[in-house]
Amino acid sequence: MAAPTPTAAAAPGSGRGVLGFLRSPAPRSTHAFAASAASPGARPATVVRARSRPAAAPELVEQSVNAIRFLAVDAVEKAQCGHPGLPMGCAPLGHVLFDEFLRFNPRNPAWFDRDRFVLSAGHGCMLQYALLYLAGYEGVTMDDLKAFRQWRSSTPGHPENFETPGVEVTTGPLGQGFANAVGLALAEKHLAARFNKTDLKIVDHYTYVILGDGCQMEGISNEAASLAGHWGLGKLIAFYDDNHISIDGNTDIAFTEDVLARYEALGWHTIWVKNGNTGYADIRATIKEAKGVKDKPTLIKVTTTIGFGSPNKANTYSVHGSALGSKEVEATRSNLGWFHEPFHVPDEVKRHWSYHIDEGASLEAEWNAKFAEYEKKYHKEAAALKSIISGELPSGWDSVLPTYTPESPPDATRNLSQQCLNALATVIPGFLGGSADLATSNMTLLKMFGDFQRDTPEERNIRFGVREHGMGAISNGIAVHSPGLIPYCATFFVFTDYMRAAIRLSALSESGVIFVMTHDSVGLGEDGPTHQPVEHLFSLRAMPNILMLRPADGNETSGAYRIAILNRKRPSILALSRQKLPQLKGTSVDAVSKGGYTISDNSSGNKPDLILIGTGSELEIAEKAADELRKEGRTVRVVSLVCWELFEEQPEEYKESVLPNEVTSRISIEAGVTFGWEKYVGQKGKAIGIDRFGVSAPAGKIYKELGLTVESVIAAAKAL
Amino acid sequence: MAAPTPTAAAAPGSGRGVLGFLRSPAPRSTHAFAASAASPGARPATVVRARSRPAAAPELVEQSVNAIRFLAVDAVEKAQCGHPGLPMGCAPLGHVLFDEFLRFNPRNPAWFDRDRFVLSAGHGCMLQYALLYLAGYEGVTMDDLKAFRQWRSSTPGHPENFETPGVEVTTGPLGQGFANAVGLALAEKHLAARFNKTDLKIVDHYTYVILGDGCQMEGISNEAASLAGHWGLGKLIAFYDDNHISIDGNTDIAFTEDVLARYEALGWHTIWVKNGNTGYADIRATIKEAKGVKDKPTLIKVTTTIGFGSPNKANTYSVHGSALGSKEVEATRSNLGWFHEPFHVPDEVKRHWSYHIDEGASLEAEWNAKFAEYEKKYHKEAAALKSIISGELPSGWDSVLPTYTPESPPDATRNLSQQCLNALATVIPGFLGGSADLATSNMTLLKMFGDFQRDTPEERNIRFGVREHGMGAISNGIAVHSPGLIPYCATFFVFTDYMRAAIRLSALSESGVIFVMTHDSVGLGEDGPTHQPVEHLFSLRAMPNILMLRPADGNETSGAYRIAILNRKRPSILALSRQKLPQLKGTSVDAVSKGGYTISDNSSGNKPDLILIGTGSELEIAEKAADELRKEGRTVRVVSLVCWELFEEQPEEYKESVLPNEVTSRISIEAGVTFGWEKYVGQKGKAIGIDRFGVSAPAGKIYKELGLTVESVIAAAKAL
Repeated sequence: MAAPTPTAAAAPGSGRGVLGFLRSPAPRSTHAFAASAASPGARPATVVRARSRPAAAPELVEQSVNAIRFLAVDAVEKAQCGHPGLPMGCAPLGHVLFDEFLRFNPRNPAWFDRDRFVLSAGHGCMLQYALLYLAGYEGVTMDDLKAFRQWRSSTPGHPENFETPGVEVTTGPLGQGFANAVGLALAEKHLAARFNKTDLKIVDHYTYVILGDGCQMEGISNEAASLAGHWGLGKLIAFYDDNHISIDGNTDIAFTEDVLARYEALGWHTIWVKNGNTGYADIRATIKEAKGVKDKPTLIKVTTTIGFGSPNKANTYSVHGSALGSKEVEATRSNLGWFHEPFHVPDEVKRHWSYHIDEGASLEAEWNAKFAEYEKKYHKEAAALKSIISGELPSGWDSVLPTYTPESPPDATRNLSQQCLNALATVIPGFLGGSADLATSNMTLLKMFGDFQRDTPEERNIRFGVREHGMGAISNGIAVHSPGLIPYCATFFVFTDYMRAAIRLSALSESGVIFVMTHDSVGLGEDGPTHQPVEHLFSLRAMPNILMLRPADGNETSGAYRIAILNRKRPSILALSRQKLPQLKGTSVDAVSKGGYTISDNSSGNKPDLILIGTGSELEIAEKAADELRKEGRTVRVVSLVCWELFEEQPEEYKESVLPNEVTSRISIEAGVTFGWEKYVGQKGKAIGIDRFGVSAPAGKIYKELGLTVESVIAAAKAL
Repeated sequence: MAAPTPTAAAAPGSGRGVLGFLRSPAPRSTHAFAASAASPGARPATVVRARSRPAAAPELVEQSVNAIRFLAVDAVEKAQCGHPGLPMGCAPLGHVLFDEFLRFNPRNPAWFDRDRFVLSAGHGCMLQYALLYLAGYEGVTMDDLKAFRQWRSSTPGHPENFETPGVEVTTGPLGQGFANAVGLALAEKHLAARFNKTDLKIVDHYTYVILGDGCQMEGISNEAASLAGHWGLGKLIAFYDDNHISIDGNTDIAFTEDVLARYEALGWHTIWVKNGNTGYADIRATIKEAKGVKDKPTLIKVTTTIGFGSPNKANTYSVHGSALGSKEVEATRSNLGWFHEPFHVPDEVKRHWSYHIDEGASLEAEWNAKFAEYEKKYHKEAAALKSIISGELPSGWDSVLPTYTPESPPDATRNLSQQCLNALATVIPGFLGGSADLATSNMTLLKMFGDFQRDTPEERNIRFGVREHGMGAISNGIAVHSPGLIPYCATFFVFTDYMRAAIRLSALSESGVIFVMTHDSVGLGEDGPTHQPVEHLFSLRAMPNILMLRPADGNETSGAYRIAILNRKRPSILALSRQKLPQLKGTSVDAVSKGGYTISDNSSGNKPDLILIGTGSELEIAEKAADELRKEGRTVRVVSLVCWELFEEQPEEYKESVLPNEVTSRISIEAGVTFGWEKYVGQKGKAIGIDRFGVSAPAGKIYKELGLTVESVIAAAKAL
């Protein structure tokens, strides 16, 4: 096809428009851009003004809605498991939203200025898969629908952004998707404020989210809703699927609060669609109303019947999470007058939805043209925005990270971290973040920026309040909004416990968030065991696809940030000290990328008498103990194991060069549980740590009483 | 002194009243009963009717309030760290509540029918320590106040129930204490409904809690508040210290919701004390009003000035979490007219508060008399209540746990768990619990009981809704209410992530909750990686003072419950399967107490060729693989490592008898990350597991694709 815009034409032979620069190399990325205007298989696009899309004729709407319902029913029936109830109840909402309001390009699911849609009630994923299929997303075919919940299908049991193009975020654990949506809407508001010009609105999309009773009960959703109200996220529109049924039965048994009144208290605009089953006009009208409310997010409570259409199971918990059973499927077909084979979609429904392929291409082409104009007029801003959209880092970005010599003054790694954060913010356009009310303890303020607030959304310091869980999930949402948005978020390391479910989803959904976790051990002192992490390093080292970094000084802190920025598909957790630490001699920014390396050694032939292994604040102790032992004539190597995951990824040869198999005299020291250290100290070595909860006392006293001392290391060395 | 009640007289020579049966043997218990009427050091008690305690003269109140303020200021100043702001602002509320309303016996902090007080804003602990000191609690002396935040003092940096008699729960991590208070109030409502008689109200106390802005922002508090409103916990009175300041400054930057409106939406009665600094009359009147509202919990918003009295730091974040500094301390002394040495408490204040020692003794004596009468009239109920108060288990209680033979039908351990739960509920009076909206999946319903609800609080099935974090903390509150209350709570194992902060506090505060966690591996199948735990076993094995149990079949499930019930100072987590498992030959109820044991072996002389180690659902695979390998002539031992913590506690001799050092050919199989298994398989062994996230597919397919099979074990055995 002819490239409709000058920018597309500028990339001859590539098979894609110039926005091919926006392609992400990762195979599982939802951000794998393929500029629709030129992508193979796209139909010729005419520029359609899609701002107020007309509704289909009522009979066709009904057909479409039933097609959605039965795709869900049939897929669940075929899989013999799944959740038909929500799709059956929310099909009318799903149809109206996707067909009449949502702006997207099915042939380029990652088109930057698309509206975002999140199904926070992720168990109802067949609703989303059916809609993606109808709307023409190539990643969800009829075969995929038939392979619902099967090995390697693009239609897993809950929506997974890394499996299914068109799925924005990974949901299922309740409340998370809603908080992700707040993050997506924050990102839009921020980018719009930074990049839009009076004459060119280059960032302009809505975020829609469907959440159910379960999401509403979870505390995380209240945290996120409170922030969304505070920030005045006017382009966030949430649909509360009010079906009164959760797994244990009627919500009356555990959930009798006035949800709309709660949201009003949180600063939201609220509307109630009393008949979500057939009240199409109401659904339309409320979405229009919501779009018109610019200063507040909107919650639309849509009262639906779970399992709508099933004569014997509708409005019961049995339709929530189980197949209807063949008899009830037939009864439902009769009841809704749907006399088709399983998985049948009537031609007129297909024809109607095919409109979205052209429309999507047009929407993106239109935006591409606008971007070309933007680029001409606002070159500098366009370059920054491009970096945010593509995820391409400015060349030489890592040269801003500070380096240190042993003569540099001792400092807490939380302070050294702040130097990194502030340096990175000067060069990375999509770098932003904040703390859960501990900015001055976590040292996370970006000094050159103000606060992201309702009226200053262009700023980059996010004030999350004391809401760790919401903070984590909002950060995940920011990260998946655009490949070049790199959010960081911060609290005390021990409070990773509050946000662990969000950290896990960050890892699972490849969100690349940076978790800045200070006060990383009993070294925080007097606040006591409630604030002192001991098991956290291991509990996070055990999690797949996440980097747990514990830098020992300035160079390692810079190295840790370098790794964190480079790993865009794998989140990083930085454990940082409250207390001052010296700048060590053998540490290095680059070596952090190996995960573990030798910082000092007086042996030769890769055969020291003893290897001391430390991380973070205890590396200093290992180094001091080594000095003492060397004075006594021993050959001692000191190894910094700053990131176990990275070390494990090194070639065997390298690992052998750091931790030779032959040397079994090994001692580790780390201010946390020793459980897990067997991996590196072996059965003949000794792990020094803290196999108990901490205690409230000055840090030095705790270290001494719990045996985290040079003397302990020396004694252990002598005992080996 | 003369024992004032017949029951006390019935225990001659014991130095305590008959309620000496209520003593807990654990040295750190807050439940260490010492029947006040006869405890040494208690003054002669006259029965005082303390229902409406008169306020002290205004000048004396002011003196007392300033004494509290300066104890906090001076203690923080001496420690050179801590949080003076809250105690200075909340001293008026603290004084009125403790001096005029709270019913307690300072010489027996664990008197059963005391009012419960929780400082959810735990950083303000000097408020609580000052009040405990003034009120005559022997565990907090002037020396303790001077040792604030020092090693082994009873005045740690946040309130810790295991360190300080009179502190009901361990707080600091925000929102937790508030949710604990909901659990305490639930326990009271439940016990009152079960045991009170028209003529004898034997359970009748209030739960008071102070929470701050931070607590309000945390999602857990909304979860707990929603439940408290739903349940109509009329005897729960929460004070919201509305001081507008959190660590990052004015709460305007992140917290602008209408808190009272939110609580109204949650079904609470709300009141606002606009002047919490000097409005004593208002504070009194609102508490009276709150006590009169029987059908709803009450939130009293008390607007205070953080750091009240400090001329330069009041109403700023700098007074939140730092010592004032000697200059500002002096300025504050001048400003408030407090011209005393540090730590001085005027005699008239001491004299006034000394009243509580007598009063407390009388309150308890009165209750003891009532209990004696109750015991005569309602013998059976009294026996049950006694068991709940004392924590003494009925003799032979564990004989109700079911046992199985290899011929018993295969079943999911979640179902076997339900048999245990139902059996235990028949014999243990204080056994109650529920699920976070997964009762029919977790299999946690007690069939002989109905639902604990607003109008049926005597029932024992608690419906937590989809609120895992709140559930965990509420359960902690129930557990610490009385030694014999044994709460269990349930969700999918993967969602321990949502409640991890509460689980940690359960472990730290020795709460003895039983966490029933089903769907414990990829074996749950199609719901996919968001629902499939892989790292959770290790992340919880790493936590101090908690038992992570993963039973393999019916006998081990019964054994796990036996251990869980016996460990009243250490919570237990049971990881249970969704899928059916066979009843294995060598498993046993009793052996679970060893943590690890041999279930089959064809070797002699403690020297098998190979040891296979499994847990839970994979023990079956290990056993099958062993059978195959034995057919080939190998000697193979199969070990069930059902609870690592318990195994580690066994004598070396026993451990050697199960896992002899000499045998290095070891293979483990567990459907989770292999990280950590180095401990038992050593560097020459092999750990089979899942070092990645799971996937959505049928369970059998996942096991096969990920190599959790008999064939994998055999192949590994041959490779060793």
